[in-house]
Amino acid sequence: MKDSKIRRIGILTGGGDCPGLNGVLRAVVKTCRFEYGIDVVGIQDGYGGLINDRMRTLTSDDVSGILARGGTILGSSNKDNPFRVPVSEGGETTFRDLSDQAIKNAQRHGLELLVVVGGDGSLNIAYELSKKGLPVVGVPKTIDNDLDATDVTFGFDSALSTATDAADKLHTTADSHHRLMVLELMGRYAGWIALEAGMAGGGDVILIPEIPFDIEKVAQAVRERGYRGRNFAVVVVAEGAAPKGGEMMVDRRIADSTDAVRLGGIGRWVAEELERRLEWEARTTVLGHLQRGGSPTAFDRLLATRFGVEAVRLVATGQHGRMVSIHGTTIDSVTLEEAVVRLRRVDPESQIVQAARAVGTSFGD
Amino acid sequence: MKDSKIRRIGILTGGGDCPGLNGVLRAVVKTCRFEYGIDVVGIQDGYGGLINDRMRTLTSDDVSGILARGGTILGSSNKDNPFRVPVSEGGETTFRDLSDQAIKNAQRHGLELLVVVGGDGSLNIAYELSKKGLPVVGVPKTIDNDLDATDVTFGFDSALSTATDAADKLHTTADSHHRLMVLELMGRYAGWIALEAGMAGGGDVILIPEIPFDIEKVAQAVRERGYRGRNFAVVVVAEGAAPKGGEMMVDRRIADSTDAVRLGGIGRWVAEELERRLEWEARTTVLGHLQRGGSPTAFDRLLATRFGVEAVRLVATGQHGRMVSIHGTTIDSVTLEEAVVRLRRVDPESQIVQAARAVGTSFGD
Amino acid sequence: MKDSKIRRIGILTGGGDCPGLNGVLRAVVKTCRFEYGIDVVGIQDGYGGLINDRMRTLTSDDVSGILARGGTILGSSNKDNPFRVPVSEGGETTFRDLSDQAIKNAQRHGLELLVVVGGDGSLNIAYELSKKGLPVVGVPKTIDNDLDATDVTFGFDSALSTATDAADKLHTTADSHHRLMVLELMGRYAGWIALEAGMAGGGDVILIPEIPFDIEKVAQAVRERGYRGRNFAVVVVAEGAAPKGGEMMVDRRIADSTDAVRLGGIGRWVAEELERRLEWEARTTVLGHLQRGGSPTAFDRLLATRFGVEAVRLVATGQHGRMVSIHGTTIDSVTLEEAVVRLRRVDPESQIVQAARAVGTSFGD
Amino acid sequence: MKDSKIRRIGILTGGGDCPGLNGVLRAVVKTCRFEYGIDVVGIQDGYGGLINDRMRTLTSDDVSGILARGGTILGSSNKDNPFRVPVSEGGETTFRDLSDQAIKNAQRHGLELLVVVGGDGSLNIAYELSKKGLPVVGVPKTIDNDLDATDVTFGFDSALSTATDAADKLHTTADSHHRLMVLELMGRYAGWIALEAGMAGGGDVILIPEIPFDIEKVAQAVRERGYRGRNFAVVVVAEGAAPKGGEMMVDRRIADSTDAVRLGGIGRWVAEELERRLEWEARTTVLGHLQRGGSPTAFDRLLATRFGVEAVRLVATGQHGRMVSIHGTTIDSVTLEEAVVRLRRVDPESQIVQAARAVGTSFGD
Repeated sequence: MKDSKIRRIGILTGGGDCPGLNGVLRAVVKTCRFEYGIDVVGIQDGYGGLINDRMRTLTSDDVSGILARGGTILGSSNKDNPFRVPVSEGGETTFRDLSDQAIKNAQRHGLELLVVVGGDGSLNIAYELSKKGLPVVGVPKTIDNDLDATDVTFGFDSALSTATDAADKLHTTADSHHRLMVLELMGRYAGWIALEAGMAGGGDVILIPEIPFDIEKVAQAVRERGYRGRNFAVVVVAEGAAPKGGEMMVDRRIADSTDAVRLGGIGRWVAEELERRLEWEARTTVLGHLQRGGSPTAFDRLLATRFGVEAVRLVATGQHGRMVSIHGTTIDSVTLEEAVVRLRRVDPESQIVQAARAVGTSFGD
Repeated sequence: MKDSKIRRIGILTGGGDCPGLNGVLRAVVKTCRFEYGIDVVGIQDGYGGLINDRMRTLTSDDVSGILARGGTILGSSNKDNPFRVPVSEGGETTFRDLSDQAIKNAQRHGLELLVVVGGDGSLNIAYELSKKGLPVVGVPKTIDNDLDATDVTFGFDSALSTATDAADKLHTTADSHHRLMVLELMGRYAGWIALEAGMAGGGDVILIPEIPFDIEKVAQAVRERGYRGRNFAVVVVAEGAAPKGGEMMVDRRIADSTDAVRLGGIGRWVAEELERRLEWEARTTVLGHLQRGGSPTAFDRLLATRFGVEAVRLVATGQHGRMVSIHGTTIDSVTLEEAVVRLRRVDPESQIVQAARAVGTSFGD
Repeated sequence: MKDSKIRRIGILTGGGDCPGLNGVLRAVVKTCRFEYGIDVVGIQDGYGGLINDRMRTLTSDDVSGILARGGTILGSSNKDNPFRVPVSEGGETTFRDLSDQAIKNAQRHGLELLVVVGGDGSLNIAYELSKKGLPVVGVPKTIDNDLDATDVTFGFDSALSTATDAADKLHTTADSHHRLMVLELMGRYAGWIALEAGMAGGGDVILIPEIPFDIEKVAQAVRERGYRGRNFAVVVVAEGAAPKGGEMMVDRRIADSTDAVRLGGIGRWVAEELERRLEWEARTTVLGHLQRGGSPTAFDRLLATRFGVEAVRLVATGQHGRMVSIHGTTIDSVTLEEAVVRLRRVDPESQIVQAARAVGTSFGD
Repeated sequence: MKDSKIRRIGILTGGGDCPGLNGVLRAVVKTCRFEYGIDVVGIQDGYGGLINDRMRTLTSDDVSGILARGGTILGSSNKDNPFRVPVSEGGETTFRDLSDQAIKNAQRHGLELLVVVGGDGSLNIAYELSKKGLPVVGVPKTIDNDLDATDVTFGFDSALSTATDAADKLHTTADSHHRLMVLELMGRYAGWIALEAGMAGGGDVILIPEIPFDIEKVAQAVRERGYRGRNFAVVVVAEGAAPKGGEMMVDRRIADSTDAVRLGGIGRWVAEELERRLEWEARTTVLGHLQRGGSPTAFDRLLATRFGVEAVRLVATGQHGRMVSIHGTTIDSVTLEEAVVRLRRVDPESQIVQAARAVGTSFGD
């Protein structure tokens, strides 16, 4: 057994689904048990369980066999924020700060520290809790791979794999049935999933938020394929992509306006514009939540495991207020403060974008 | 070499994409070459190639290694009908009967018979051509599995596999994130894909065209899950499903009205109705064309191969005007006339629906 | 609730692993609970749990989410036989009949009937127990698909899928690296897996127990491919295949002689003989246990579910002593007595073998 | 079009199969055509085609749709070395240096430079050819990920994915059937595949060449699982693993001695030793060539594409004698001289090994 001043911690998973969450939980519980003799309490459904006191001790039995499973055995929620809990009274909804109650619940269970596995929202809350005296260690979680503080996050490779598989399936049909296929992928304000799945799936056009596009140039790229004898095209569109001067639809969706959803998102808009310009029927596929589910890839299981182990090392060595990260092949960490300030977005001049252009991909710019 | 009076045939693939088409082409070409010494001419892009005379001889090299590939090496089209070819003149579109020209093209290439791999549309055209003197043999192709003349068609098992994989992915997320997930699947007027993928993917509610549903009963089924402590639900909806007294949206889509598509189909309608009734945010996934693409399953490759071999046997033994089929484990055939008359739809009283109900599935009726 | 005279049953899974076991358990428990109000007791590790009294009541919570998982939540054993339990005393092993004790254990738990999910070994034991007064209902389980009493068993399609995937992987390498690849597959005394995976995976030669082969003819088939310009070959060998006049190695393996295993099985023998005759290095892959594991295919989940539901219907309607089966698309049942008497083997003159020959496959005969 | 002094190059793929080869070919041909107007000549079957003058110009049509396919459209060979060509005369085999002839063939086709996609063997030959006046650019290819000059090679992630899938399949069976499963994986002198697939697949024991093991400690690790109530174990063994003081069997295999192959490799040896010590039947799976085949993962397609694009940039900018590589997320290059000198092996003290130990994995040391 290695030394640790901390004897008992809580852990929660927050935000949207992401393949690899169970891998982190397994690694944290096993490392705590086998290496340090630390007790681990699992908090149900993200911060909701902290507010409402739903927790239970996790044993290594609880995490046995979960590495290959999607989802999270703790449950999650992307709504509950202890600093802003909605309360309905007399038909009206107001928000109350229940963070003191959340911290008291943690204390009542003897939790000396909280490990938070979550995206920027959950990590920001963790940072606020730490300022109120509850030590935290963060583990980044996002399929969008949009955190500047780490080279890559678990979940991204699995989402990429699902998205590439979809592109492959559309490709064979597009080719043999001479179709114009539009595939809308996730990624929020970043184009990583669309860029990499577009390249891996042989997309002819890739539209990402970081490179505003001109729909006429997209149409022209498809026409030029035709001149070279190719009577089909696959257009991959990030949900955050927007025409030059246009507004991101993903903003509206994230802001919970349902207008963008009703419109069907940027994918459908691109398809309809291309249909009109090319007089060629287009088919749109919005991959949506499929990108968040399923068994994680080997890459993501490994990264999740390594992140979990490092999180416990930070706990045991008193390096609180930090988030684990990876740079190159090395696991390290950053302060929670720096962790969530900067988005990692695609640089339009980067090597990878240039590589995509070199093999003939159009970005519609 | 076995005997055959026919020395030279044409083959075309028509209609939408369907995993297994290449398996049929490979089996037809190899059997013709190895068993009977029959020449095979591949016609490009369905009936379009017959009308416009785009054909080339297929060798066993051409079909080597294609068994595992989606799509069709011949290309396809689901528009071209030699009896009704659109001609644009002076801004107006009229339709002309070019079936004589199609038959002349076939004759010029010395084709004594045409093997048509297609759905009901393509097979109907084949039947009409046979009445005009061009012998034909049909091979059924539909992912919807909705032909009464055969127990099963290739492509269905692959579509089912893709749909079940999607249900699995939604399931892990639904479970851990307590979501109400709606998955819309294909199938046209029949509920086979939704029924079987719903059962294989553990769907809680399955809505199919053959069992008109009551949206309030669907909501009630989800509520009752909640009473049993289940805070998530997966609702699988066939594109042809409709509420009692309502109209199928799939009709409108097939009829090329874009209203249904704009509405987002029945899946979105169900999701919105449930959101309103349950005050619970629902997420809709429309799987769409993914169900038509990708490498065929072992089952479909095998069925495609057996259908292709039998088609050639019908050719060589003079049994023209027939479509191959399977009953139980036996490959046989029916007349083209009977082949496409009756749709195979789910019987609401059948064993399989009863089995779904027995394990707790609601059909919303 | 439907009527049932039986109020409480036990269920066990016996024999080797088979994708779909959990699907049967889930269907039995859910149907018992939701449709009939029957209690279900799960017996651990096959007949071992009956002998040693390890059982627990199964709730619908226990079977929630297991449909997609390989293995069996009850555990299994392919050794324990209550009629022949090995007892070690003084360095010597003798066998005792503990079937009375097994039946007493069942009675002590109030089990009025036993559902046995197993292969021929487990079902034979079930039949013997039924003769001693413990009513049983059987569900067939074998990846080998070798029971004559049913058209198909769950597990087979999943094994076929894994085997075909392996053949696909070897195929691309064989093609580009001009290799002679030998793939040995399971199936015991029947060639179903090898035949169907061989056909679906584009195998050039398929060797099965039902068609004794001549190794020189196998070599000749490979040589002839070379004459046609193909510089690679994939040879698929069932573990039970044997040269004309030779003895099945699978017998020796099943009989637990390790000689055959040491030899590496028939796959390696074929590879070595071909290397010698063709002066061409061959690579052998023995797929082994991979064929028994992993998530079941949609087809197998559906069949397992339907079998489970029917088993409960037999229980509730007093049709004991029977095994569920499927013929065509209809679920039915046979007496346990007939169930295991006849092996379902490949008929060398059958349509499917003829289809394989038609596309150029050699059986080495 | 960008500038390039080089107008015409040859390209070959050498050595064993590796998912991603086609991705490199596609990227090289497309980048040459679209960005620089360079002609590309494909050389058949590795150095064999250079020696025997089998080459053809590659167009972008030739590489269309191959990104997702395993193998290499050029064919490969891992035997042909222009400096040492076996010649049989009078029953005796001697070796001749035909490198001058190879270079002359290249010159006759106007090749100004050779792009070699291969492992250390092929790249060494490339280096020797470059010293004789044929400029070369190298692209590393190995599923073993054992080159020190680059963080990662394409093919590794695909092999890892196949190996992890196998571990998953064995895991469900091991768990429910209480088995001791041994899985032997590739990797030559390095343990990367076994280490990462072992971690991703939840292996209980991982044996790699870099950490000589004590078989009694392996047995003890399995026993201790038993004390904690786990009645199954998965042991992952790299083909190059060896007991302390023992000799690597992989050496013998690589040296073409068939003894190790006959013995069944280190996997079987470990299984037999454990059987004896634990009195528990073990099952061994040797995954073998499956790790080299199949469609590359998204990660490998992307890396292959980026490597191909960079290789052409090196060609066009006159940076000959170099091999492309990746460090962190940046594509760069090293001299061919440094490229192949040092093996990248697992550091027993590295973070990743420590992470494996932290979650309870034994390395048998």
